[in-house]
Formats: sequence, structure tokens, C-alpha cells
Amino acid sequence: MEQFNPVDHPHRRYNPLTGQWILVSPHRAKRPWQGAQETPSNETLPDHDPDCFLCPGNTRVTGDKNPQYTGTFVFTNDFAALMTDTPDAPESSDPLLRCESARGTSRVICFSPDHSKTLPQLSVTALEEVVKTWQEQTADLGKTYPWVQVFENKGAAMGCSNPHPHGQVWANSFLPNEVAREDVLQREYFAKNGSPILVDYAQRELKDGSRTVVETEHWIAVVPYWAAWPFETLLLPKTHILRITDLSAEQSSDLALALKKLTSRYDNLFQCSFPYSMGWHGAPFNGEENGHWQLHAHFYPPLLRSATVRKFMVGYEMLAETQRDLTAEQAAERLRAVSDIHFRQSGE
Amino acid sequence: MEQFNPVDHPHRRYNPLTGQWILVSPHRAKRPWQGAQETPSNETLPDHDPDCFLCPGNTRVTGDKNPQYTGTFVFTNDFAALMTDTPDAPESSDPLLRCESARGTSRVICFSPDHSKTLPQLSVTALEEVVKTWQEQTADLGKTYPWVQVFENKGAAMGCSNPHPHGQVWANSFLPNEVAREDVLQREYFAKNGSPILVDYAQRELKDGSRTVVETEHWIAVVPYWAAWPFETLLLPKTHILRITDLSAEQSSDLALALKKLTSRYDNLFQCSFPYSMGWHGAPFNGEENGHWQLHAHFYPPLLRSATVRKFMVGYEMLAETQRDLTAEQAAERLRAVSDIHFRQSGE
Ligand SMILES: O=P(O)(O)O[C@H]1O[C@H](CO)[C@@H](O)[C@H](O)[C@H]1O
Ligand SMILES: O=P(O)(O)O[C@H]1O[C@H](CO)[C@@H](O)[C@H](O)[C@H]1O
Repeated sequence: MEQFNPVDHPHRRYNPLTGQWILVSPHRAKRPWQGAQETPSNETLPDHDPDCFLCPGNTRVTGDKNPQYTGTFVFTNDFAALMTDTPDAPESSDPLLRCESARGTSRVICFSPDHSKTLPQLSVTALEEVVKTWQEQTADLGKTYPWVQVFENKGAAMGCSNPHPHGQVWANSFLPNEVAREDVLQREYFAKNGSPILVDYAQRELKDGSRTVVETEHWIAVVPYWAAWPFETLLLPKTHILRITDLSAEQSSDLALALKKLTSRYDNLFQCSFPYSMGWHGAPFNGEENGHWQLHAHFYPPLLRSATVRKFMVGYEMLAETQRDLTAEQAAERLRAVSDIHFRQSGE
Repeated sequence: MEQFNPVDHPHRRYNPLTGQWILVSPHRAKRPWQGAQETPSNETLPDHDPDCFLCPGNTRVTGDKNPQYTGTFVFTNDFAALMTDTPDAPESSDPLLRCESARGTSRVICFSPDHSKTLPQLSVTALEEVVKTWQEQTADLGKTYPWVQVFENKGAAMGCSNPHPHGQVWANSFLPNEVAREDVLQREYFAKNGSPILVDYAQRELKDGSRTVVETEHWIAVVPYWAAWPFETLLLPKTHILRITDLSAEQSSDLALALKKLTSRYDNLFQCSFPYSMGWHGAPFNGEENGHWQLHAHFYPPLLRSATVRKFMVGYEMLAETQRDLTAEQAAERLRAVSDIHFRQSGE
């Protein structure tokens, strides 16, 4: 019988952070595509758009006026998914109809006053301010809430309703699903192995290199062995750090650099503004012993073949199992093959 | 303090089939939408499209020619995600780099020779043949594989690359993720309560009615209490049935009727061809005692506000928790408010 070979043979890989398997079908990238096309975002936008509700000086739907901000700017979401004062729900006795009340808040973080720029097009100094804002928001909301979710939806393909560079931060009175699951599995690994799973994992990847996309002094970004999205990456500090608020000044500046390089590689891959959802996971503010946690960011970009053809996580994926059409190593190789300087920028 | 009220107050609901929570933010449906628009599929298609690789008599990419079929037609996917003869992968000793080989096959099921029709536009007799084909495929592949996933991706929004009415069936040498999870949770409930969870759940919903969308003699379709997608439904037989292959002739014909009514209500909601992914879950063919299983179909439709505005499961959803903007009861009410006769059809 032929020998198994992960480049030709369908296989499953295990995600030890979520306990889920991913089906890898590396030979399937060859099939023709006749389905939906995304509209790549390659238009040149103005620095200031009078109709944008995030640009400095403009008025929002609620009538509030944005200040003439020059760096980042944070405000409470005008249509927050959570409220600070929701009353408690009565305990449900029926195991089939379980409900609990949820409290929280949701803020918008404008990354820059410049309507036309995305993260990779900001200077490292401006990115340092983005990192600082994430830290401040996490520290502030972490005083009240056990969970603070910092994230960015970028591009129309990821449900982003406005191209102005911005992200969000949602605070929760509960540990959301994905986080609760990562918490349990990191805790189990730590109990068994005495070291945090993602600290061990970063060591493996630093040694191996085949899945590495960006490496800076303090950070490494890899296409994780268990990646679900075609060009998914996991961004990790090289040392054990519980939360984004625990980074040293050096690690924070170096993060700005790592972000610039990673997002530039993304844009360079298909020469477009690469859509994604990204966000940070770190130890919850739940007063528990959290030594099993390691700070990390997930980048989930949907594009598969080109600026216009995305991966659809539908049918089989929703009902059975996530499936991908190229190996993590192949994806990393392609991201390494392009420059880490943005295609619209001439030199640093 | 105000009293908790699920129509105004954000809350979380628990999905006892997956063990996951869903954040419900019923007040959020009020926010304005400036993001991506879907292209609704309202064009009138020809009965036969010479460029369609699924129409009778046409030649496929591989050079194979489709027969002049008159009912359903099944063939092996020309670009299957799985192969029947993948060799075994060597056991991985590293808990962080776990891999296993995967075998299987994947077939395409054309629902009708008529290129222009979708499920709700087929006659009940034609739908009976679709049900029969699902049963035959499940029986056939279940002889070799522990898992047979029957599903349909409908519409460009769900990654469907061809409007010709068709679904797929993928067979797996393993229990995929979603199924393994449902297996564990159904088994746990059964051990504790002595009855299958979904049989009990159907009883609750038959009595309550507030989440019911379609009820026929043998079937009930509800927006489940824990729905994730805005107009998600769960289709259940009223009695305990392990697999689609175990349905009586009567239950099978009645399923055709239930499908026609449910998919017609979907199309009528926004007067468009309603995109979705749907698929069947039933007891695996794994030789185990499977009394805890109950046959069911999930429908996951993405539309939220109109034929052109969908729900995006991005950012917060990917990183933290699924979030929805209306309650299950509100969604069911809207689906009940429209006719169960398709808007393009005049009477039965
Ligand atoms: O096989 P198709 O229809 O070409 O492809 C579609 O369904 C598959 C199974 O759900 C998905 O993996 C693909 O992402 C989707 O585009
Ligand atoms: O808050 P926004 O940007 O309007 O909305 C977007 O992000 C949210 C958080 O990920 C999602 O719930 C929405 O589906 C998406 O459209």
C-alpha cells in the first residue's frame, strides 16, 4: 500500500485549544470554481468621508458628534448587543429550555482619523497607539467584567459595515463559549504537563519553522497546525504572558511591528485589502488562578483562491466538520513567499 | 429593579445538543445597516441550461455525460473532498500535532432535471423521490461508512456554485466533529432521563407552539429555543426514529409535504429564493447501541433582515460566542405569518 503523505492524502487534524477536528483535503484545491465572487476592495478612499460616521468631526446616527481626534478614538457602540443593567433572568428548571441573563457593553475603537488607511498602512508608531488603546480598554473593562473581547471585522466579506479603520471591544458578565472552551482545555493541558499549552506550542513552531509566517524579536505568527480558515494565523508572544495588559513596553512596540508585517503579507497575497476577523484571547478577569492561559490573537481570513473567491464554511462544515482545501504548511509557505512590506508602500 | 423579559433583555440560551451558548440581543434588530448586500436570486432560469454541468444530457468537466434523467440523479463528485483508499497515517506521538487519516466519498444528488426549480417548487411527488433518494444513499453508504452526511447548500450566499437543484452526500470513515458532539450529549441525556433528548424536546414544542413553524401529521419544524441563525429551524419526526432509512412509507410521504411547506415559508418570508444549508443527522452506522439518537434535519439560513441583508457570524461570534438579533419566538412568528404555499405558485 502507498505511504501516507499529508500533501496528497485527506486527513484530520486536532485543534487542542477547542477539542475539534478539521478535515484537510489538500487535493481539492484543483476543482474549478463557478460560485459567488466577492467584490475586492481596491478602490482608493478619501482621507475623510463626510458620510462616514467614524471620521473626525462627523455626526453619528444618534446625533453625537465625533471629536477632531488625531490618534485612536473610542466610543460606546450606538447599537450595542449588550446592556449594562439587564435584570437577572429567573432560573430555568427545564434542562431543554435553559436561559440566563447577560450584561455587558460594547465600544467602537477607531484606529486612525484617516478614513483611507487599514492596519498595514498605518505607521508602526500609529500601530503602537492601537496596541496601547487595546491595553487601556482591556484594563478598564476588566475592572468590571470577567471577559473583554477585543476584535476587528475587516472588509465587507466579514460583515464590516464601514471601511473606516476600526475595531470593537465587547465586555461580558460571563465567559463566552469559545473562551470557556479554551479555558477548560488549556487548564487540562497545564494540569497534565505543568506548562501552558500555547507556550509549548510556540516552542514547537519556533523550532520547526514550516508554519511560521512572521517572526519578530518577541512574537511569532504561524498558520496553526489545526487551522480552519485557509490562511488563518495564530499570533503568540514568545514568553509566557497572561493578558495584553501584561506586555512590557518593548513587547508592545514589537507587537506593532509584528502586526504591520503580518497584515502586509495578507494584503500582498492577493494584492487587495485582505478581509478577516481578528481578536485577542487572554486570561479572563475572573479572579481565578490563570497560569494555564497564554495571550494570543486569532486571525480568521475568509479568502481562498484570489481576492474574489472565498472559502464557504457551509453544508458539510456546519453539519459535520470544518474542511479545508490546502495544508497549513502550504498556506504558510504562500504567505512567506510574499513581501512583508505592503504593496502600496515603497520601502519602510 | 425591572423584571427580566426575553423580548427586551439580552440573554443567553443553551443548546443542549452541542453544549454551546448563544447570546440573544433582541433589541439590536433596530440598528441601521450599511454593510454588504447579497444579490437576491430572483432571476427566472431556463428549464435546461446548456452550460450547466448538472442538467440532463450535458457533459461535465471530467468529460462524463449526464444521462437523460427524469427524476433524481446521483453521481460521484468530480472533486470529492475524500477518497476511498487513503492509507493510514502514522500515529502522532505529539499531543500538539495530532493527525489521522480520513477516508470517504462524496456524491452529488440532482433533485430534478428541471434547472429552474428549487425544492419548494417541486411537486410533493417529486419531493417524495428526493426523500427516497436520500434514504437509498444513506442505506447504501451506511453499509461501508459509520457516517453518511446528506446536505444541501442552496444559493450563492451559501457557497453554492450552481443553481440547478441539487444536494450532496458525503460518507466518512470517522464520526465528524458536530456529530460526535451530538452523540455524546444525546447519550448523556438518555442515560440521565431514560428518553431521547429530541423526542422529549418535540413533545415540549408540540405543547408550547410558540416556536412552531410547520406541523404535519408526522413532523414538526420549530425555530429551536437555542437557534443560532436568524431563521434556523429543526425538523423532527413526532415519534422516535433513529435514521432516515427507518421512516415508514407514510412518514416519508409526509416528510415531502413538510419540506414543501417549510421551504415555501422560507421563500415567502422575503419573496426570494431563500438561501440555506440543510442536512440530516441520525444514528451513525457504528454498530453501537444508538437508542439515544433521534433523526432530525437542521436548516441554517443566513438571511436576517431582507433578501439582501444577511447575518454575519464574524468577529465576536468567531472569537467569543454566537449572537443573534431576534428571539427564536419572534423568528417563528414571522415564518408562521407567511403562507405555506409558494409565492410563485397559484394554489396547490
Ligand atoms: O462542493 P461544493 O458545492 O463545490 O462546495 C461547497 O460545499 C462544500 C461542502 O459544504 C464546502 O466545503 C465548500 O466550501 C462549498 O463551496
Ligand atoms: O457591530 P457591527 O460591526 O455592525 O456588526 C458586525 O459585527 C458583529 C460582531 O462580530 C456581528 O454580530 C454582526 O453580525 C456583524 O455584522
